[in-house]
This record gives sequence, C-alpha cells and structure tokens, in this order.
Amino acid sequence: MSEKIVVGVDIGGTSIKVGICNIEGALLQTYEGPTEVEKGSDIVCENIAAYARLIVDQSPYEWDQVEGVGIGIAGFLDIPRGYVHKSVNLFFENVPLKDILEAKLNKKVLVNNDANVAALGEAWAGAGRGISDCVCYTLGTGVGGGVIISGKIVEGFRGMAGELGHMTIVPDLEAIQCNCGNKGCLETVSSATGIIRMANDAVERGDRTSLSFVENITAKDVIDAAKAGDEAAARIVNRAAFYLGKSMAAVAVVLNPQRFIIGGGVSKAGEFLFEQIREVFRKTAPDMAQEGVEIVPAILGNDAGVVGAAGLIIRS
Amino acid sequence: MSEKIVVGVDIGGTSIKVGICNIEGALLQTYEGPTEVEKGSDIVCENIAAYARLIVDQSPYEWDQVEGVGIGIAGFLDIPRGYVHKSVNLFFENVPLKDILEAKLNKKVLVNNDANVAALGEAWAGAGRGISDCVCYTLGTGVGGGVIISGKIVEGFRGMAGELGHMTIVPDLEAIQCNCGNKGCLETVSSATGIIRMANDAVERGDRTSLSFVENITAKDVIDAAKAGDEAAARIVNRAAFYLGKSMAAVAVVLNPQRFIIGGGVSKAGEFLFEQIREVFRKTAPDMAQEGVEIVPAILGNDAGVVGAAGLIIRS
Repeated sequence: MSEKIVVGVDIGGTSIKVGICNIEGALLQTYEGPTEVEKGSDIVCENIAAYARLIVDQSPYEWDQVEGVGIGIAGFLDIPRGYVHKSVNLFFENVPLKDILEAKLNKKVLVNNDANVAALGEAWAGAGRGISDCVCYTLGTGVGGGVIISGKIVEGFRGMAGELGHMTIVPDLEAIQCNCGNKGCLETVSSATGIIRMANDAVERGDRTSLSFVENITAKDVIDAAKAGDEAAARIVNRAAFYLGKSMAAVAVVLNPQRFIIGGGVSKAGEFLFEQIREVFRKTAPDMAQEGVEIVPAILGNDAGVVGAAGLIIRS
Repeated sequence: MSEKIVVGVDIGGTSIKVGICNIEGALLQTYEGPTEVEKGSDIVCENIAAYARLIVDQSPYEWDQVEGVGIGIAGFLDIPRGYVHKSVNLFFENVPLKDILEAKLNKKVLVNNDANVAALGEAWAGAGRGISDCVCYTLGTGVGGGVIISGKIVEGFRGMAGELGHMTIVPDLEAIQCNCGNKGCLETVSSATGIIRMANDAVERGDRTSLSFVENITAKDVIDAAKAGDEAAARIVNRAAFYLGKSMAAVAVVLNPQRFIIGGGVSKAGEFLFEQIREVFRKTAPDMAQEGVEIVPAILGNDAGVVGAAGLIIRS
C-alpha cells in the first residue's frame, strides 16, 4: 500500500493517545499508553515516539507511508517552533517537543495546543467537515475554543486565538473573578465549574431547588434538574446558554463563521441547551451574520484530539 | 519595463478613484473621475474601465504589465462571484461587476467590500505592513471593520466578517437602537454619528457643556471640546473609547491579532483618543492576548481604498 497516512498524538496527564488517520480524516486505528509524567519529559517524549511507531507497526501500514506526526498538548507553547514553554499537567518546562520528536521519528512533527487541535479535528473530520470557517467551543472544566478559517487553525500573534472562555461577557455588576485574573469571563458562567458554582450559590442563598438535596453537585446534576423542571436549575442553565449565545453573536460579527460547534461535557445536555443558545444568538447577532449559520454539537467526542493532531499535518 | 503592477479601484458615490501599485504595495499613481451614478450601472462600469485604462496609459507602464484589477465597493456582495446584489449609493442592483469588467479589461478582476478593502490596504502597505494578522476599525458615519489573517481578508460565510460596528457591546440598560435593527451596537457609541447623538443628548439634558453654544455639533466639535477640558464632552469621548477598547478585548480572545488599526474621521482625535482606548483594552483583555499587541492609527487615509483594492490581486 502506498496510501499516505498521518499520525495524531493527544498527550494527556495520565495517558497518551495516538491514532492513525487517512488523508481524508478517517480515524483508522488508535492506541493508548501511560504518559508517565512522573518520570520527566525525556521519558514522556520516548513514550510518544514509542507509541507512534507501535501503532503503525501494528497496523497494515508501513512507517514510510507516514506523512507526518501531529501533537496536541495543553500548555503555553511557541506553536511555530513546537516549543513547550510550560505544561502544568505534564510537568514540562522549556521542552523543544517538535525538535525532539522529529529527531526520534525522522518525520515532520507539528505541535499545537489541545483546544486548537480538538477544533481542527471537528472542522476537518467531525461536525465541521466540508466547512471552510467554523468556531468551536469546548465546555468542560473551563471553556476552551478554537477558530478555523479557510480550513486552518488561527493561532494568533502569541497563540492566544480561540481563547473564547476569556471573553469578558458578563456585565460588571454581576461579574465574578475568573482564574485568569479578569472578571466576567464566559468561563465563569458557561463552564461546568461555572454551572456548579452558580448551583452552590443558589443552594447557599436558600433558593427552592432539588439541588439542595444533592451532595457534591455536578454540572450534570444541574442540567438534569433543569430538564426535570427545577426552576432554579433552569435559570442557571439558561444563564450559561445566554452568555454562550452572546459570545457567539460577538464572534459572528468578527468572523461570520458558517458553523459553531460545541463539545465538552456540558454540551451533553443536548438540544435542551442548544435551543437556548440558538435563541440568544438569533436575537443578538445581526441578521446577515446569522443567516444560514448553524450551532451544532461536536461529534468526535474524545477522538477530536487525535484526529485534529493528525489533521495538523494535512491542514497547515 | 517588465515589472508587474496592479490596479486598484475605489468606487464612491460621486467619484471613482483608481490607482497603480507595484507588487509591494507602493502607490505609484492615482486618477479620479466622476462616477455618474445617475446614468446607470452600465455607464458606471464603462467609467471604471475607462479610468483604469487611462491611468495606465498615462503612466510609464504598459497594459500588459497589469496583473489584475481589484475593486472596492460599498454594498451587499457575493464576494467570490464579484456580484453586487445591491449598492445603495451607486443605485446598483444585481450587477455582475467582476464579469462585466473582466470582459471589458481582459484582466483578472476581484471585487470586495469597501471596509474589507481599506483594511487590506492598511495591512498590506499601511500601518499593518509586515504583520500577518491585524484587525481594522474605521470610525466614520458608522463603524466599519476588516479582519486580516495570514495577510488575507477574512470574508466569512456571507461576507459579514469584520462587521465590527455591529458587535453588541453596550449593556441593555444603556443600549439604544442601531440602524441594523439591533440594540447596543458598537456603532451607536463609537461612530461620529454616535458621538454627535450623545452630544445632542447632553445638550438637551441641560448638561453644562460648551457644546450648548455650537450649532450642528460635529464629532470634531465634541473631541475638541473634550481636549479643551469640557467634562461633558470628555465623558462622551471616553464612552466611545471605552466600548472600542472593550470590543478589541473581545476580538483579542477570538483572534489574538498583533495589531489593531484605527482609521476614519473620528480617529483624527489622535493620541487623546488612542490612550483611552488602550487603557480599556489593557484592563479588559487577558494578559497573554494583549502582550505585544498594538493599537495604532491608520496611515493611508483616503488612499487605503485604492491600495487595498490593488492588494486584492496580490493577497488572494
């Protein structure tokens, strides 16, 4: 077989996931092995290289067919150089990841941050397939984002494009402090953390809510309660949706993307959440910037990372 | 001479400006002739073609050296097709501008909207020269905008990228109606029209201000009064600057551009205005999205249109 393939690597704190994609973005095979962060960055890099070779060895493909290896990693990066200034969960500091792995693998290696890479995965081979411009939100512990224009990741001057969770969106009077140091960031209301905080506040305030009887409230608890008709919970979910819709309206006048793609744990709330987001977007964005624009769920789930990492090789 | 040149055309309601640029963006020659909108779109297209040929005839260059002709026009366009659905100030409706002019000129013709084209002019050969990603604001009757990523105009799904004037930015309680039908658009406070409206409101309210003695207040009157220490005027200019800075902070987390470029009549307020915008931006944008980011005045003035139109041929 002379078909070209690309390898994607999604480095997490506990495990490294590698995958093989064809050049159309179909995920053909995956493998997952321990990261071993505690052994230091040299071993983590060894592991990445080993798993990348292993998955190809175990596949019907030859190493020669590998067009390149893409890597997604959380942290503060110099993207063009593939240099990791700092990655807290990997204990990486000043690691020239691209150079190290190009030497080990003898292939072109490209590195980008995990949120950008997940967005590229969805854009290339997920909910954005066939679309040139889309913007992705990942609603997890924080709110991550990625911007894809003409099929490629927009990185920005210092790699900070797509930091949608840190759009100042909550008016000052109601704004609370974000981990980033600013107030009123989208992440303070539309992340799982934000939803949990608002729920705990409601319980503490003594609002009448079924959540009062829940220990260690999760975002899913809040969403389930809202779906079951709990008014306090519904207000919280609505607030998360409201500011998401508002932020999408702001993005719409900057970029007029064809599609907004929402993934991450909170997005599992499904149409219940999406309908509320769409309603705010429809009311807020100018007509022309919303005509034909769709707000849809991500479809690749946890595979978005490996697929998008592989996509770096095709879409750069 | 075998050097390649590009021709830019800036179609206004009263005159058509044409210019010759070299491929580095230096504006070598300009010519301006009447648009003659009252004679209909056929004649306007004749005029464009005639002025484009004329300027080359009168220059040291040959028509053979022309790489292509770019056109900037205000209106609702299908950009890839170079088709004008509607241009109110030109009385154009359903004019296949690109096709008509390619037939007349026998050159590649590209059409884009005037705000995008002006942004490209600045990015290519003005205040954004040498910069890959920048975002431009034009503060005139309205607030126009243009987004340049990797040196190229971002058009968006329906050509609505860069509609920065319609970002909903003023909180609901203080928001007023915009021409676009929405409330709280940036344009309602940061355009010349917005500044004039706020000044008239202040006078009507009976605020103590030197503007009470001015007939037909202009934005320049308000800025001059603010500079001279008039407190009511200063509050108005500060409000215009405040929401500009806020909108730039929102753009910063979406795109992290290296430079914001501000042009248009209101920008002539100079450092007095720019300092206020920068202060809000510094306070609002996350640290990493503002590090090294500059907010600077446009430098091409009225030439941005022809230069950017010519730039379409180079930067597409």
